[in-house]
Amino acid sequence: MTTPTSILILAAGQGTRMRSSLPKVLQPLAGRPLLSHVLDTARSLDPHRLVVVYGHGGDRVREAFPEDDIRWVHQAEQRGTGHAVQVALPETDADDRVLILYGDVPLVRGETVRRLLAQLDEGGDLVILTAALKSPTGYGRILRDDSGRVQRIVEEKDASDSERRVNEVNTGIMAARASDFTRWLSKVTNDNAQGEFYLTDCVALANTEGRRVEAVVGHEAIELMGVNDKRQLAEQERAYQRREAERLMVQGVTVIDPARLDVRGEVEAGRDVSLDINVILQGSVKLGEGAKVGAGCVIIDSEIGPGAHILPHTVIEGAVIGAGASVGPFARIRPGTHTDSNAKIGNFVEVKNARVGEGSKINHLSYVGDSELGRDVNIGAGTITCNYDGANKHKTIIGDRAFIGSNTALVAPLTVGEGATIGAGTTLNKDAPPGELTVARAKAITIPGWKRPVKKPKE
Amino acid sequence: MTTPTSILILAAGQGTRMRSSLPKVLQPLAGRPLLSHVLDTARSLDPHRLVVVYGHGGDRVREAFPEDDIRWVHQAEQRGTGHAVQVALPETDADDRVLILYGDVPLVRGETVRRLLAQLDEGGDLVILTAALKSPTGYGRILRDDSGRVQRIVEEKDASDSERRVNEVNTGIMAARASDFTRWLSKVTNDNAQGEFYLTDCVALANTEGRRVEAVVGHEAIELMGVNDKRQLAEQERAYQRREAERLMVQGVTVIDPARLDVRGEVEAGRDVSLDINVILQGSVKLGEGAKVGAGCVIIDSEIGPGAHILPHTVIEGAVIGAGASVGPFARIRPGTHTDSNAKIGNFVEVKNARVGEGSKINHLSYVGDSELGRDVNIGAGTITCNYDGANKHKTIIGDRAFIGSNTALVAPLTVGEGATIGAGTTLNKDAPPGELTVARAKAITIPGWKRPVKKPKE
Amino acid sequence: MTTPTSILILAAGQGTRMRSSLPKVLQPLAGRPLLSHVLDTARSLDPHRLVVVYGHGGDRVREAFPEDDIRWVHQAEQRGTGHAVQVALPETDADDRVLILYGDVPLVRGETVRRLLAQLDEGGDLVILTAALKSPTGYGRILRDDSGRVQRIVEEKDASDSERRVNEVNTGIMAARASDFTRWLSKVTNDNAQGEFYLTDCVALANTEGRRVEAVVGHEAIELMGVNDKRQLAEQERAYQRREAERLMVQGVTVIDPARLDVRGEVEAGRDVSLDINVILQGSVKLGEGAKVGAGCVIIDSEIGPGAHILPHTVIEGAVIGAGASVGPFARIRPGTHTDSNAKIGNFVEVKNARVGEGSKINHLSYVGDSELGRDVNIGAGTITCNYDGANKHKTIIGDRAFIGSNTALVAPLTVGEGATIGAGTTLNKDAPPGELTVARAKAITIPGWKRPVKKPKE
Repeated sequence: MTTPTSILILAAGQGTRMRSSLPKVLQPLAGRPLLSHVLDTARSLDPHRLVVVYGHGGDRVREAFPEDDIRWVHQAEQRGTGHAVQVALPETDADDRVLILYGDVPLVRGETVRRLLAQLDEGGDLVILTAALKSPTGYGRILRDDSGRVQRIVEEKDASDSERRVNEVNTGIMAARASDFTRWLSKVTNDNAQGEFYLTDCVALANTEGRRVEAVVGHEAIELMGVNDKRQLAEQERAYQRREAERLMVQGVTVIDPARLDVRGEVEAGRDVSLDINVILQGSVKLGEGAKVGAGCVIIDSEIGPGAHILPHTVIEGAVIGAGASVGPFARIRPGTHTDSNAKIGNFVEVKNARVGEGSKINHLSYVGDSELGRDVNIGAGTITCNYDGANKHKTIIGDRAFIGSNTALVAPLTVGEGATIGAGTTLNKDAPPGELTVARAKAITIPGWKRPVKKPKE
Repeated sequence: MTTPTSILILAAGQGTRMRSSLPKVLQPLAGRPLLSHVLDTARSLDPHRLVVVYGHGGDRVREAFPEDDIRWVHQAEQRGTGHAVQVALPETDADDRVLILYGDVPLVRGETVRRLLAQLDEGGDLVILTAALKSPTGYGRILRDDSGRVQRIVEEKDASDSERRVNEVNTGIMAARASDFTRWLSKVTNDNAQGEFYLTDCVALANTEGRRVEAVVGHEAIELMGVNDKRQLAEQERAYQRREAERLMVQGVTVIDPARLDVRGEVEAGRDVSLDINVILQGSVKLGEGAKVGAGCVIIDSEIGPGAHILPHTVIEGAVIGAGASVGPFARIRPGTHTDSNAKIGNFVEVKNARVGEGSKINHLSYVGDSELGRDVNIGAGTITCNYDGANKHKTIIGDRAFIGSNTALVAPLTVGEGATIGAGTTLNKDAPPGELTVARAKAITIPGWKRPVKKPKE
Repeated sequence: MTTPTSILILAAGQGTRMRSSLPKVLQPLAGRPLLSHVLDTARSLDPHRLVVVYGHGGDRVREAFPEDDIRWVHQAEQRGTGHAVQVALPETDADDRVLILYGDVPLVRGETVRRLLAQLDEGGDLVILTAALKSPTGYGRILRDDSGRVQRIVEEKDASDSERRVNEVNTGIMAARASDFTRWLSKVTNDNAQGEFYLTDCVALANTEGRRVEAVVGHEAIELMGVNDKRQLAEQERAYQRREAERLMVQGVTVIDPARLDVRGEVEAGRDVSLDINVILQGSVKLGEGAKVGAGCVIIDSEIGPGAHILPHTVIEGAVIGAGASVGPFARIRPGTHTDSNAKIGNFVEVKNARVGEGSKINHLSYVGDSELGRDVNIGAGTITCNYDGANKHKTIIGDRAFIGSNTALVAPLTVGEGATIGAGTTLNKDAPPGELTVARAKAITIPGWKRPVKKPKE
C-alpha cells in the first residue's frame, strides 16, 4: 500500500435533533468531541492529507482542533455529501486514495477502514463500507450481483419488497481514487426531493463506467452508526465504554462490572489492577501493578502507584499516589499532590499542591494545601493549613515525624520542625522548633451557676 | 368523544408475594406508590368519576391519597375483579364510558387507554387491551374471529395446543358503557375453581348478546404488566426509568448512561444539560441550560441555575443554586439554601438554610447554617457557624467581602461587618466591625523539655 | 442416596489468560476466591471426602483454605484432567460415588450436581453434566443415541457439519463410582495433540464396556461455564450478583436496580428492607425490618437495626446501628461502633470504636473515636475527640444530655459529665463537671488599623 491516502472528514452537519447549542461534531463522547475520535482514527492511518469539511458551528469547530495537520474546508451551504466531498477534493492529489469519513460516526475502527483501502489496492475502483443490520428499516440497501459486486444502493422509499428484505445497508463511508471521485461528482446532480448532491450516486456512476464497485461489511453495526440525537449519543457512549472495559480486561485488569466503568481518556494499567463499580478514569491515568480502585472513585490525570489502595468515593485529580499508599474513602486529592509510598490519606480530607512523605498520615477531616510533609508525619483530625491570606498563597513545611494535634490551624508561611509536636486546638502562626511541644491554648474554666438556654416559644 | 368517562381503579389486592407490610398498591415505583402512577394516568383523561376500589391495607391506602377527586369504594372481601367492578359501578352514571384500570399496573400510558375509548366511540361495545408477548405462558389468550373481533379469552389451563401458540394475551384493562358492565356483571357467576367473579367473563357475555368485542394491542408489553412481587417491581422501576431517560434525551439532555439515571419526580431541564452516571433526581427538580450534574449526585426538590456545575457525590435538597455556581464534590446542601450566581461551595461542606451571595466561596470542611452571606465572602476551611445553642437556632450575618479565617467558630447570633477579616482559629461570640481584623487567639508557646508519650505495653 | 459421595475439585490450572500473579482459582468472585464458591457447593452435599487437586500457585492456594476438611493432592505436572482425577482417586474409597468439580467453574449449583448423583443411583454408570448453548462453537458436542444415552463427545475440530449443529455441550463435570473411574482412567492414553490424559475419554471407555452413560442438562448455561480470563470473570460476577439480587427480592427486599447491587458475603434481610442503587454489602450483613440503605452505600460486616435509615454515600464497617437510627449522607462508621436506637450521625462524620447512646446526635464534620456517649448527647459540628497522643489511644466518656459546642477538641482521656455544656471552640484537656458550662476561649479583639494583605505580583 504505497499510494498515499487522503482522508476527508465530513463535519458540516447541523445536528438539529441534538437540541444543543454545541455543533454536532463537538458533542462529547467519552469526554471529548465526536470529531476528535474520528481524527484519531484518521491519524492512525498516517494520511497524506487530513481534510475536515466544516459548516455549522463554524469557528467553534475549528477552534476546538488547533492541530496544524488538519486542512479545513468550509462548506457554506449544506448541499449534500457529494457537494461536501467536491469542495474538499482540491486539497488532495489526483492520485491519492481518498477515504471519506464522517465527524458524527465516531466509533469506526482503523482496522475496518484499512480493509476498504486494501480492497482498493486489490482492484476495486470504489469500495463502500456496509453494515449487516437486524432491523435495516430506514437505511439504503446494498444490492449486489451474483459475483458479489455492488450494483446499486436503493433507498428505503424506492425499494421493492424483496429489496427491503436485504439487511446489508450503506454506511456512507467509502474509498476511491481522488481522480475518480472528482469525475463522478462532476456528474452527480441534485435532481431529487431534497435538492442535494449525494455521494452515494457515485456507485451508479462507477457502475455505468463499468468500474468495480465493492463492499466491505463492517464487523460491528455500532461502529458504523451515526449520532443524530442524544439517544444515539448515549448508545455510542456505552459501546465505546464496553470496548474500553474489554480492552482493559484483556490486559488483565479485574473489572467488577464492565457496564459500570467509564474511561474518558488514556488508561495504562499494570497487572492485577482491580476496578470496583462506578469508577471513572479521565484524562491520562496510570495504575500501577496491583492497585485497587474502590467503588465510585473518580481519577483524573493521575498516577496511582503499585499496590496503592484507593477507597470508595474518592476523587483524585492531577496527583501522584505512591506505592502502597491508601487514600479515602471520601478523600479529595487535588492537582499538585504527590504522596510517597505508604502514605495514608483518610476520610473527609482534602489535599492540594502538597507533598506527603513516606508513611505520613492525614487520616481525618483535614485540609492540607501548598505544603511539604516529611516522612512519618501524623496530621491530627481537623487540621487546617491556612495557606491563603485572602490575597496570596503561602507554604507550610512540616518535618519528619512531626505530630500535629487535632483541630489545629497552621497559619502559613511556617515550618514545623522535625519531630515537633503541636498541641491539639493550637492556632500556630510562627515556626515550631524541632523536637519540642508547641501549644496555644486558653485555659478551660467552668462557669458556676450558668444555665442552659431554654427553647423560646414561637412568636 | 363527548361521552363522559368514569375510571375504576381496582386496588384491593393483597400482594402476598410482595412479602411486605405495605399494601401492594402503596409499594414505591420511582419513589411514589404504584397507585399514584395509575391515578396520574387516569387524571390525564379528565374523568367524570375517579373511583378506587380498595380492600387490603384499607385506611393506609385511603390516607395515602387525600385528594378529594377520588371516590373510595371498599371491597370488604376479595371476591374477584368482576365483583370489584360491580361494587364500584354505582358511583358511575349509566351512560358513562367506564374504563377499568388496576392499581398494580402502573405504567399503562394515557395514550394507550385513549385508544380503547376511541374504539368504544367507533362502535365497539367492549374493548379490551391486549399485549403481544414473546412468552405468553401463563396468561389468558385472546381468540379472535376472522374479522379480528374477540371471540373469547381462554385461560392457559383450558387452552388447546394451537390456542397456546397464540401470543396475544389479556391484560385485564377494558372499557365499556356503564350500563353494559352492570348488566353483564349481574350475570357473571363464581362457578369456578377460585370461587371468584371474573371481569373477563364479560367478553363471553357480550358475544352471547351479539355485541362487538374488540381488542387494542398495547405498544409495549411492560406497560401492561402487573406487579406482583419485588422482582416485577424492579422490572417496572427500570422500565419507568428507561422511559424517563428517553424523554430527557429527546429534549436534548445529555445522559451519559441512560441505565444509570433515576428520576423520582418531575424534572425540567434546559438545553445542554448533562447528567453523569448514577444521578438521582427526586421531587421537583429544575436544571437550567447548560447545567452539569456529576456522578453520584442526588438532587431533591431543587433548582440548579444555568451553567451551574454540580461536582460528583453531592447531595442537594430544597435549594436554589445560582447560575454558574459550582458545588461539590462531596457537598451537602440542605433545605433553605439559596446561592447566588457564581458562588462556590467545595468539598465536605454542609450548608443549611443560608443565603450565599454572588461570588462567595465556602471551599472546604465547613458548616454554614441559618446564615446570610453577602457577595465575595470567603469562608476559610473548617469554619463552623454555631447556630444552635441546644435550644434555639440563631442567625449569622456576614457582610460583603468579609474574609473568615480557617478553623473559626462563629457563635450566633452575630454579624461580621462588610470587608471584615476574622483571624484563623478564632471563636467569635460578638459582632465583628466592618473593615477590621478581629481575632481571638491564645499565644503559642513551646514547652521546654516536654517528652512525647511512649507506647504502653499491652496489659 | 446412602452411598457416600466423594468430591474431587480440579484446581491445578495455571490461568495464563488471567494475566495475573494470583493463581486462577484464587481470583475473586463476589469478593472471595473462585475455589471457595466451589468448596461451598461441595460442602452442601455433605461429602465423604473433599479432595482438591492443586498445582499452579501451590502453597498460596493451600494457605488460602486452612479448613481441615480438605484433602490436598498436588499435581506436580499438568498432564490433563484425566491425570488430575487419577492422582486424587486414592483419597476416595472404591465404593464412593465420585463427583468431579472444577475450581474455575464457580457457579454450579448444588441442586444441579445432585441431579447427577441421583441419576447415578437410578442406574447410570457415568453421568455427565451438559449445557445447551445458543453458540456451541468451540465446545465438545454431546452425541446421544435414540434412547438418549450419551454415545460420545466429539471435539469441535473433529466434528462433522451435522455434529457441529448439536448445541448440547460438555461441561466436564461428571460423576461415577470411584472403582469405575479408576479402571477407566488406567486405560486412558495421552495419545493426542496436547499429550494430555483427558477425563472425557471415560465416556468412550464406559460405552465400550456397555455401561450406561447418561447426561443431565444444566439449567442455566452460565453456571456451567469456566472462568479463563477477566472477561469471563466479570460475566460470572454479574451472574452471581443477579442471583443474589433475585434471592433478596424473592425474600421481599426492595431492590431499586438489581443490576446495581453487589453482595459479597452473607446477607440477612428483614421485611421491607430497601436497597437503593449501587449498594455494596460485604461480609456478614444483617438488615433489620424496614431498614433503608441509600445510594452508593458500602456496608461491611455490620448490623443495621429495624427502621434505620442509611443515607447515600455512607461507608459502615464492623458496626451495629440501632433501630430507627439515621446515618449519613457521607458518614464513615468504622469498626467497634455501636449506636443505640434513634441515634443520628450526619455528614462528614467519622465514628470509630464508640458507643453512641439512644437519641444522641453527631450531625456534622466530627471525629468521634474510642468514646462512650450516653443518651441524648449533642455533639456540635467540628468536634474532634483527640484519642491518640502519638503513642497510645485514650478514651472519651460523655454523659447523658451533654452538649458539646462546635469546633471543640476533647483531649482524651477525659470525662464530660451528665448534662454538661462545653463552649464552642474549647480545647478541653481535663474532665468537665456535670451540669455546668465549661469553656476555654481567648478573647476576641479587633486590631485597629490592620490592613489586608495585597496580592503580590508574580516574580
